[in-house]
Amino acid sequence: MDYDAILQGKYPAKRHAQRVVEYIRSKVGNASGVLYLESRMTKLLEDNDEPEPFRQRRYFYYLTGCPLADSFVLHDMDSSKTTLFIPPVNPESVIWSGLPMSAEEALEKFDVDEVKYTTAVNAELATAASQKSQPTVFAIQDQVSEHVSFKPFDSKDFSLLKQAIEACRVVKDEYELAMLAKANAISSKAHRAAMEKARHAKNERDLEAVFLSTSITAGARNQAYHGIFASGRAAATLHYVHNDAPLAGKQNLLVDAAAEWDCYAADITRTFPLSGKFTTESRAIYDIVLRMQLESIAALKEDVLWDDVHLLAHKIAIDGLLALGILKGDKDEILANRTSVAFFPHGLGHYLGMDVHDVGGNANYSDPDPMFRYLRVRGRLPAGSVVTVEPGIYFCRFIIEPYLKDPKHAQYIDAAVLEKYWDVGGVRIEDDVVVTKNGAENLTTAIKDPDEMERIISSS
Amino acid sequence: MDYDAILQGKYPAKRHAQRVVEYIRSKVGNASGVLYLESRMTKLLEDNDEPEPFRQRRYFYYLTGCPLADSFVLHDMDSSKTTLFIPPVNPESVIWSGLPMSAEEALEKFDVDEVKYTTAVNAELATAASQKSQPTVFAIQDQVSEHVSFKPFDSKDFSLLKQAIEACRVVKDEYELAMLAKANAISSKAHRAAMEKARHAKNERDLEAVFLSTSITAGARNQAYHGIFASGRAAATLHYVHNDAPLAGKQNLLVDAAAEWDCYAADITRTFPLSGKFTTESRAIYDIVLRMQLESIAALKEDVLWDDVHLLAHKIAIDGLLALGILKGDKDEILANRTSVAFFPHGLGHYLGMDVHDVGGNANYSDPDPMFRYLRVRGRLPAGSVVTVEPGIYFCRFIIEPYLKDPKHAQYIDAAVLEKYWDVGGVRIEDDVVVTKNGAENLTTAIKDPDEMERIISSS
Repeated sequence: MDYDAILQGKYPAKRHAQRVVEYIRSKVGNASGVLYLESRMTKLLEDNDEPEPFRQRRYFYYLTGCPLADSFVLHDMDSSKTTLFIPPVNPESVIWSGLPMSAEEALEKFDVDEVKYTTAVNAELATAASQKSQPTVFAIQDQVSEHVSFKPFDSKDFSLLKQAIEACRVVKDEYELAMLAKANAISSKAHRAAMEKARHAKNERDLEAVFLSTSITAGARNQAYHGIFASGRAAATLHYVHNDAPLAGKQNLLVDAAAEWDCYAADITRTFPLSGKFTTESRAIYDIVLRMQLESIAALKEDVLWDDVHLLAHKIAIDGLLALGILKGDKDEILANRTSVAFFPHGLGHYLGMDVHDVGGNANYSDPDPMFRYLRVRGRLPAGSVVTVEPGIYFCRFIIEPYLKDPKHAQYIDAAVLEKYWDVGGVRIEDDVVVTKNGAENLTTAIKDPDEMERIISSS
Repeated sequence: MDYDAILQGKYPAKRHAQRVVEYIRSKVGNASGVLYLESRMTKLLEDNDEPEPFRQRRYFYYLTGCPLADSFVLHDMDSSKTTLFIPPVNPESVIWSGLPMSAEEALEKFDVDEVKYTTAVNAELATAASQKSQPTVFAIQDQVSEHVSFKPFDSKDFSLLKQAIEACRVVKDEYELAMLAKANAISSKAHRAAMEKARHAKNERDLEAVFLSTSITAGARNQAYHGIFASGRAAATLHYVHNDAPLAGKQNLLVDAAAEWDCYAADITRTFPLSGKFTTESRAIYDIVLRMQLESIAALKEDVLWDDVHLLAHKIAIDGLLALGILKGDKDEILANRTSVAFFPHGLGHYLGMDVHDVGGNANYSDPDPMFRYLRVRGRLPAGSVVTVEPGIYFCRFIIEPYLKDPKHAQYIDAAVLEKYWDVGGVRIEDDVVVTKNGAENLTTAIKDPDEMERIISSS
């Protein structure tokens, strides 16, 4: 995909608004009215005069492509006109912060029909309402400023707009895919930079530093989420965040980190040998996880049941762990018994988009089946959806020991063989994949071939 | 200062509590009761399942030295006993996040007398109250969880504790100075790394990336504030945050950035020539600002009036700008007329501690005198207080042009001479300085000698 060329154009905010309107009309018939959304407001840190790190509100971004704080948007469902409201110039703050974006610049930059200043919002809402009979305003609960008046509207709906945007966000358009590809390209580069530095690093944070600086130099100021740089056994802690342990004596490093590109997230994990050479045990586990991942990706296409792909990954894990002797017994019994959850306790992946764990997944965290409880997407994947495919095998005492004490599971685990694997820590391999009509397109270019990783690490 | 040796010890939380109690008793006599504070709670990002970037609540940290979220502290004013309450182990979250700090580990690590789990807080509050006649609980407004009960207390005070901690925080003890020195040492190293990279960088963000990665590698995960990497004329925008402009064709880079060390902030600015050689105009301005800074620091000692030091800096600026011909006329008239505010519009500095703009400054932002309106500390500086000394001279059209249009000021400005200086952008030099009985100690070791900076940049 030539994402750089695509990203020369404007973010398709109006097309998004139209899709959202179509969704709303599919639910409530020929509604007449407006969509109203607000950006995040500037907020200071508690007990402090510095602003909080700014994170644009995704619903607002989806209908504007506008990264500004303290802004509003109004989309007229009948005329399809989008009006963006941005903060007016405050001469006092110009002295400190320079000139803000003008209405003219904003109109040039964003895919909207008109740009006004936020002081005009109530007048515009009143005008829009007055042009309709029985107008409805669709907005999001608790995301409307106190001074904004919906009085001119006959009815107010505070639930459908959010539901509509979340439904539309599942299927990405070409522009959104280009944003995700760009985030992936930068993040893939940062993963490579961490690998290249691995043999010369002393502490997990040295590699986090390389990752962040590579991302920023490439233009991505924000990471998509708090990265995990987990060496040795820490890799078995799924949400490890400390990133401050020495690397000496550790076999592998698990890096789960990625940058964001204009509100669109990448989410990538690589696991590699710090020395440049996998141990026999680590390589064996790596090969199983890579097979889980490649076969899961190969199973993707429009309307595939994600639950089935997750199950497939477990079956491959069981085959692999049986071959190594960590598991023993009948593979169907092991699957039915859910014993492999001890080694692969999380879901195969989740939707990815403006949020790392993107909307629309319909997870069921109270599912009594432990194999599916943490699966963040349930059901069929439409073409154009983007999922992470991130199988893993972990050797985590907190998780595995209760299995070893439970005769129901212990019969299938060879504790003596297992003993050799604790220092593997954990292996996860995660790519970001677009579901297509006939298959899948992988957006992630970070190296995962084990021989190539070893070569890069060793030769640096 | 051998700060690393000092930091081997515990953060002096109990001494802080005692100072706070002394302050409270100085205001309300022999009060009997407890101090109660809460840490920041874990909070998710809006519309997202990722936690917000965590920033510990400073009041809580001052009495505990504890960086944990979701914790409470109780200090008995009569027995001087401090009890810390930390989150209990949640088996479900151990699977994802690993084992949290135990009560035993916390007792070992923090300067407190007892550590319990947060589930015990109401029972402990009740016990503490029952041991006193007419007990008072001192807490901070809006920083008490709903489930925490102050019912056992005869009286509740929600204002004095905050006031007391803020008063105590102004004067730093040796441990706090060591924290500030450590933050300064790391940040000074990061400034040097940015200078060394300057000639090879293409964009402001390349140098921000170097700065961040140097800080993280040195163990400082968090920056103390959003750094400013402003090249060319952008340096005249005081709170420039974009950090994404190309460097080609720019004379100087202003870097206002610093790391945080365990909740203690550094705050450092350097301005240097991107080519490795100042232009004549830039060097002339740099020399004036350096003189402003060195003479301001030389004027510091216990009980000096900060307003006087700020005034001194303006006088040096006026002398320097007169010598260059940018200003013309009588220096006393120019001072009385406040014309130098056009070039040096902000205050000379502010208190520094756990907050970058630390508590206790008593600024008067509605002061009718424009020379003092933005001065964040007013009055006398006690020994042990830490101030930034950060004079600057800027060539900002938004700020200067109204002065050129106002005959009251225009008579003192030579617009023709000024014309040569717009591309200097702005120069600021900022160090962090401890006020002592007889003078001052500079915590900042980043290079500021213009010849040495040129040498470092050129030879890299």
